Amino acid sequence: MPAGGVKRPPEGQGPILGRMNSAFETVYGDVQPLDWLCLAPHPDDAEIGAGGTLIRLAQAGKKVGILELSRGEKGTQGTPEVRVQECARAAQIMGLSWRGQLGLVDGEIMDTAKAAHRLAATLRAVRPTVLVVPHFKDRHPDHFGAYHLSKRAVHLAQLQKAYVGGEPHRVSRVLLYQGNADITPTLLVDVEGVQEVWAAAILAHESQFAGAAISETVTPEIVERRRARQGYWGTLGRVRYAEAFEAETALLVDPEAL
Amino acid sequence: MPAGGVKRPPEGQGPILGRMNSAFETVYGDVQPLDWLCLAPHPDDAEIGAGGTLIRLAQAGKKVGILELSRGEKGTQGTPEVRVQECARAAQIMGLSWRGQLGLVDGEIMDTAKAAHRLAATLRAVRPTVLVVPHFKDRHPDHFGAYHLSKRAVHLAQLQKAYVGGEPHRVSRVLLYQGNADITPTLLVDVEGVQEVWAAAILAHESQFAGAAISETVTPEIVERRRARQGYWGTLGRVRYAEAFEAETALLVDPEAL
Amino acid sequence: MPAGGVKRPPEGQGPILGRMNSAFETVYGDVQPLDWLCLAPHPDDAEIGAGGTLIRLAQAGKKVGILELSRGEKGTQGTPEVRVQECARAAQIMGLSWRGQLGLVDGEIMDTAKAAHRLAATLRAVRPTVLVVPHFKDRHPDHFGAYHLSKRAVHLAQLQKAYVGGEPHRVSRVLLYQGNADITPTLLVDVEGVQEVWAAAILAHESQFAGAAISETVTPEIVERRRARQGYWGTLGRVRYAEAFEAETALLVDPEAL
Amino acid sequence: MPAGGVKRPPEGQGPILGRMNSAFETVYGDVQPLDWLCLAPHPDDAEIGAGGTLIRLAQAGKKVGILELSRGEKGTQGTPEVRVQECARAAQIMGLSWRGQLGLVDGEIMDTAKAAHRLAATLRAVRPTVLVVPHFKDRHPDHFGAYHLSKRAVHLAQLQKAYVGGEPHRVSRVLLYQGNADITPTLLVDVEGVQEVWAAAILAHESQFAGAAISETVTPEIVERRRARQGYWGTLGRVRYAEAFEAETALLVDPEAL
Amino acid sequence: MPAGGVKRPPEGQGPILGRMNSAFETVYGDVQPLDWLCLAPHPDDAEIGAGGTLIRLAQAGKKVGILELSRGEKGTQGTPEVRVQECARAAQIMGLSWRGQLGLVDGEIMDTAKAAHRLAATLRAVRPTVLVVPHFKDRHPDHFGAYHLSKRAVHLAQLQKAYVGGEPHRVSRVLLYQGNADITPTLLVDVEGVQEVWAAAILAHESQFAGAAISETVTPEIVERRRARQGYWGTLGRVRYAEAFEAETALLVDPEAL
Amino acid sequence: MPAGGVKRPPEGQGPILGRMNSAFETVYGDVQPLDWLCLAPHPDDAEIGAGGTLIRLAQAGKKVGILELSRGEKGTQGTPEVRVQECARAAQIMGLSWRGQLGLVDGEIMDTAKAAHRLAATLRAVRPTVLVVPHFKDRHPDHFGAYHLSKRAVHLAQLQKAYVGGEPHRVSRVLLYQGNADITPTLLVDVEGVQEVWAAAILAHESQFAGAAISETVTPEIVERRRARQGYWGTLGRVRYAEAFEAETALLVDPEAL
Repeated sequence: MPAGGVKRPPEGQGPILGRMNSAFETVYGDVQPLDWLCLAPHPDDAEIGAGGTLIRLAQAGKKVGILELSRGEKGTQGTPEVRVQECARAAQIMGLSWRGQLGLVDGEIMDTAKAAHRLAATLRAVRPTVLVVPHFKDRHPDHFGAYHLSKRAVHLAQLQKAYVGGEPHRVSRVLLYQGNADITPTLLVDVEGVQEVWAAAILAHESQFAGAAISETVTPEIVERRRARQGYWGTLGRVRYAEAFEAETALLVDPEAL
Repeated sequence: MPAGGVKRPPEGQGPILGRMNSAFETVYGDVQPLDWLCLAPHPDDAEIGAGGTLIRLAQAGKKVGILELSRGEKGTQGTPEVRVQECARAAQIMGLSWRGQLGLVDGEIMDTAKAAHRLAATLRAVRPTVLVVPHFKDRHPDHFGAYHLSKRAVHLAQLQKAYVGGEPHRVSRVLLYQGNADITPTLLVDVEGVQEVWAAAILAHESQFAGAAISETVTPEIVERRRARQGYWGTLGRVRYAEAFEAETALLVDPEAL
Repeated sequence: MPAGGVKRPPEGQGPILGRMNSAFETVYGDVQPLDWLCLAPHPDDAEIGAGGTLIRLAQAGKKVGILELSRGEKGTQGTPEVRVQECARAAQIMGLSWRGQLGLVDGEIMDTAKAAHRLAATLRAVRPTVLVVPHFKDRHPDHFGAYHLSKRAVHLAQLQKAYVGGEPHRVSRVLLYQGNADITPTLLVDVEGVQEVWAAAILAHESQFAGAAISETVTPEIVERRRARQGYWGTLGRVRYAEAFEAETALLVDPEAL
Repeated sequence: MPAGGVKRPPEGQGPILGRMNSAFETVYGDVQPLDWLCLAPHPDDAEIGAGGTLIRLAQAGKKVGILELSRGEKGTQGTPEVRVQECARAAQIMGLSWRGQLGLVDGEIMDTAKAAHRLAATLRAVRPTVLVVPHFKDRHPDHFGAYHLSKRAVHLAQLQKAYVGGEPHRVSRVLLYQGNADITPTLLVDVEGVQEVWAAAILAHESQFAGAAISETVTPEIVERRRARQGYWGTLGRVRYAEAFEAETALLVDPEAL
Repeated sequence: MPAGGVKRPPEGQGPILGRMNSAFETVYGDVQPLDWLCLAPHPDDAEIGAGGTLIRLAQAGKKVGILELSRGEKGTQGTPEVRVQECARAAQIMGLSWRGQLGLVDGEIMDTAKAAHRLAATLRAVRPTVLVVPHFKDRHPDHFGAYHLSKRAVHLAQLQKAYVGGEPHRVSRVLLYQGNADITPTLLVDVEGVQEVWAAAILAHESQFAGAAISETVTPEIVERRRARQGYWGTLGRVRYAEAFEAETALLVDPEAL
Repeated sequence: MPAGGVKRPPEGQGPILGRMNSAFETVYGDVQPLDWLCLAPHPDDAEIGAGGTLIRLAQAGKKVGILELSRGEKGTQGTPEVRVQECARAAQIMGLSWRGQLGLVDGEIMDTAKAAHRLAATLRAVRPTVLVVPHFKDRHPDHFGAYHLSKRAVHLAQLQKAYVGGEPHRVSRVLLYQGNADITPTLLVDVEGVQEVWAAAILAHESQFAGAAISETVTPEIVERRRARQGYWGTLGRVRYAEAFEAETALLVDPEAL
């Protein structure tokens, strides 16, 4: 199991970090430099919020990964053991290059120095160019917590002197994906061509979507309901289905590509 | 034909208004004090953007009306003659109390003193409590033009000394409905229970939706595509389908109703 | 004393929560399902910021409660012992069904997992439909801290597997009230009819308002100064006095009530 | 009567402007370079929205002026003849250096080239350093119309080749004052010390405030109601009463004065 | 000289449009379908605000054009005759495919039906995929006026039944460039590699920049001052020099290009 | 070494604060009441972001100070020992009255009760009228962390019963300075006249700016690149070079100074 170790700080200088044997576990594929990495507070969040885009990229030959921040152990249905297998199965369907698990406590994901160092070590290990994170407007504390956590981790990952294992790495772009909130996106991605793969990847999370309806997210109607969202963005982007992303700062672009 | 006359200004004081024999035509039902009035730049805009809510209100016994601002004569399909009949048919399906036509020039709806006086006279005639208008963020000039026009008209309608026929009338609330833009709504209305009536009302505009697909709005798939929008707002409002509205200023509410 | 117990997490899974014998104390009335609950960082914040609305609701027969998050022990005047008695007296004046004390440290209210579990346990005990919380724009750290804390607690309260005592409960609506900040409200509530009761409820906090002027809030002129705020919102809502609230997400409403 | 003439454009180059003998009338005082000029869509708007600040400035020796854009002839009460006398009386009370009347049509104030040239000619005549204008968020079309109109006039006033009488003049700062809207101010001005003068200046508009209550603005309670607004801003600025202004762009300031 | 003719409306249906022999003049190059078109209220605005990007695109083989909306006849320096020659010279330097002149009145550019029809006819003639327009926040009335005008023109250009000469054309994307305002861009374009060409293109407007300093824009220091802006955006985009653009709605993008 | 002691809380009431012998160290000058204090997450942040303004103020005779929150020990270049000497040298160049070091952990600056008490004790010791803090939009966690931390510290500093050494002190104004983010300033300060002193103060941090280019901030081109920012704000403020600040709430101002 590849894992990012953490350098011990000099005596008395790293008061927050304790012992940390490993930053993450690999759930699927191999640790490798990735083009895109999506942070998921819980198993299935990435599929639901950005799955179509991730599948499109994987199909185009990009190295795409997902990192679950927690095992989703507070979810009403499913166990960590079952859910990790579902994650692997969905990864295969999506064509991911890597999927990992950071092992933070479900329901308590927030910006702490300790969690940020673990996430930074993972960023250094899989070295994404584009990082996709949950939105700060989400009502779910693990989603906005993951957003805030990612800011510190992105910073630490590039800092040579941080107490983080691995070689420094700078993420080039950070995009926010839509979870539960109504967002005002700056970017749309056409996902009409990957509808079936996307639905299959979501439904691979059987423990969540094959049983009783627990909430508006944990429900057998999940694909239908999220497809309505894609249809909404589609009407705005003049395509059939689209996923929505927000860049918080101006994106440096090649004007020829516009 | 009931019509709102316009008082002649004293010599030299009303330089913009010319001769105006009538402010509006009635297309369906009778001129009467309305609970809700929706302004539609073109025939079918009200059905598409706020139809479910208007139907719910009509079914609950409210007096509901629609005022088309133009005859939609610049639309690729349909003629003014055909479209007015479609409007009447849709009004019947929706259970409207009144539907009218203001006769402004399609493609040139904007805030002018002349158009505002005509609209103000109509507001005085049908005396709505709640006025629903297009959104200022819409890319269509007739939509944001109607928004700006409505502000002046609402003001003139309540002004005793305005050169506007009829008794002064104050609109109590103004809400913006979603047309083509992505808006940030403050209010959602559950429209699951009126889906079939709503679809029938839209499809009553046969000249627009029974033929070729001209644009993302003028297409036989209109119901499916706009239902995706309702599904989007539904996922945010925890219902199946919802319509979205924005109030620009704080709404005085009865806290017991929250 | 009714109190929400906290389930012990399985070994090794709940690293943040320590021993917690009780989540809250009852200061007035009985623990019961509430229609509205207002979170007050310190005793008297609820009266000052949302008192008129709470009184109106109580007078209309709604079950209304206030939960103080701290005892206000850092306040220049008053002691925790005196202030709890003032709270009970004000509760009686307002017609509250329940008033409680969460016992967090004054000046250190923030979003921590521990505090969130305590608040979540209390939410499960008194089961409010509408939750009213301080505003994130407030300059006072306990106010914006309470806002952030409430987000996590609302989430935990509905999560079956959270380490929180009591039956899961979902809050239906969250509204923000105005504390010290200038906010941009989405809702106004007419409070003209309850001016005298409101003033009496505030002045029941004698330790704060019967002595010297300490700040622009802790002053014998408190009623006069806050009435100016109500007068401001009144001029915007076309009533004499109003309180202002903000809903962060679109509210599902019955259009007939508009 | 001092008045700003308008140069005739070369044949065929000025299609919008017609014959204009004079841009404005003087109602009080003398045309002179002003430190501050406040634009009032109707007589009394400046007193109500920015009166305390204007009085403070005049008392401090600044040259302060008000320009009414219309005669308020659409107001329910008062006549243009009576209102101009009230304006002169209020000007005297406030200590203004000049007060003028632009003579646009009440209810039709908007950004037109013709009105902008008239206003620009007046700006050149009285040459204000600071220009105070109505707010674009106001519901009253003459208020947001005046805002938009002022933008074009400020531009024309500084343009050497504009068809505007007088020497080019550049306004240094533009501030927006609060009319009917809830605004988010960037600046507050303490007006406690001028409360009595301010009330007298408003009440000098007897035709509006000595008779029946017509609206929430035209009412004998006007001073009490607007003082509530000043009290609101006072609670935010830590003074008793304050007026609120908004600068739309960053203000160049002397840091020593902060 | 190629020019877009305007169809005569049926009797009585086009009350605003009068006789219009030609919509535009060609100043440089040939009328042809363009990849990018930049709208400039006055000669030199496009070079100053978006010149580096336009040059980059032209150098990459894209068809790039500029349309001046007015002849800049109100500018303190230069004459329309001289300025049109400067425009042609700058076009050559930039490698433009086409440059045109719409001939609206300098200082009076705003959203009117007449101007919108002229602009729409020009859009149909040169058929741009990307349209770059001034920003609505600009203090210059011709800049925000051009923004508003462009909205109506883009709509009319695609409307089959509009009274506009030429075949209907739909613009794919609209971007706003930075003129005088501080904007919040969503896109940055690296323009380090074209600094010299860009400076030469600006200085080709000799009548504006080779003489006295008239304002902060009309000054021999124009290149130095605008390069400071590019340097500012460069520090934000991690390049040396960048130009800033804003897309008002979410852009449909190819995720592989991010 | 002057230092702010911390009162021990009564048993059981201050669970977060541990033993704290001293709140800060003095790096330059003497502890004294300051007119302005700028918070710098790391040595050199204040010079880069607000240096020109601080120098102007010092030259005008104001008491100006800088407090570094950390020693910058995670920076790639320089050691804490070297950097503190650079700080003292820069302080002398700028004419500061005092410069201090709070000693928080670089890379872990955030809003904690413990850090807030230390910062509050320092605020009580140097008693600034104006406090200048980093911006919440900054991508660097220590910058937005310092912003959030400052809110709590400002509150604690004025609270009589806070467990903070020294006499209570209320900061009059808080301004945010521009670090790495693109901000929307409300205030600009002309810094043309202090360009040379400002450059010298920055370059006094030799360990950062005399060696290799590490990032877009740690580079020998730092002065040139930040001068581009000042040039940008200069073009907006109609001066040569300006620094940008944001006030989050309305500023009470003397209108005569505008």
